[in-house]
Amino acid sequence: MKRHPIDLQIEKADKAIVAEEFDELMDIYTDDAVLVIELGRNAVEKNEIRKAFEAIAVYFKNGLQVEQNGLEILESLDTALVLANTVVSSPGFPATERKATYVFNKSVGGIWLCSVDNSYGHEIIEKNA
Amino acid sequence: MKRHPIDLQIEKADKAIVAEEFDELMDIYTDDAVLVIELGRNAVEKNEIRKAFEAIAVYFKNGLQVEQNGLEILESLDTALVLANTVVSSPGFPATERKATYVFNKSVGGIWLCSVDNSYGHEIIEKNA
Repeated sequence: MKRHPIDLQIEKADKAIVAEEFDELMDIYTDDAVLVIELGRNAVEKNEIRKAFEAIAVYFKNGLQVEQNGLEILESLDTALVLANTVVSSPGFPATERKATYVFNKSVGGIWLCSVDNSYGHEIIEKNA
Repeated sequence: MKRHPIDLQIEKADKAIVAEEFDELMDIYTDDAVLVIELGRNAVEKNEIRKAFEAIAVYFKNGLQVEQNGLEILESLDTALVLANTVVSSPGFPATERKATYVFNKSVGGIWLCSVDNSYGHEIIEKNA
């Protein structure tokens, strides 16, 4: 079955994260993308996102593994929503499946780029005390 | 606290669904929006989406109630991802909270319109048998 170009972009991103190839990783994001680093803390624009991924790599002792355990894409013209079961693990960190949500925008050149990267899904919703 | 215009659009949509005011409801969607009607079945473009909502109203015996129990917006230029705990109920149907995911695009006129409406969240991911 032919894979969706966004599916291939996500695979490329996951490989770049694991290999700590941050130049290649940044190619997948829009200039103004937003990344949820952890609950309550976002990185905005490529420069901040790159720094966040560098810090994340160190946090996971340079052993971060990322893979998608199922993924669905809902496309509407140049915008697409991705729902993914993203599994994050690292030596010493148990594998955790996150209900990740990503938004991609098709660029003028026809390349799908990630504008919103929220691997925490609904966990970011603040609960009323 | 000043509410985000997308938050107000969602409130308007919820009220229109409850009141079965489908003209007003359609004003909130882009022309090419996609709506997940139920697992495995999507409506594409306003005409199909309107018909879907008309059928949903009948299915819920014209007593559908929709409200958001927490909502978060992640904005990147003219694209925004919304995570919401959407509670759906109706006389005879128990209240169900869905992990809803919506994408909004800012139109040329500056109005935020919904391009992807997936109230089922990660439930749409097909499980491998």
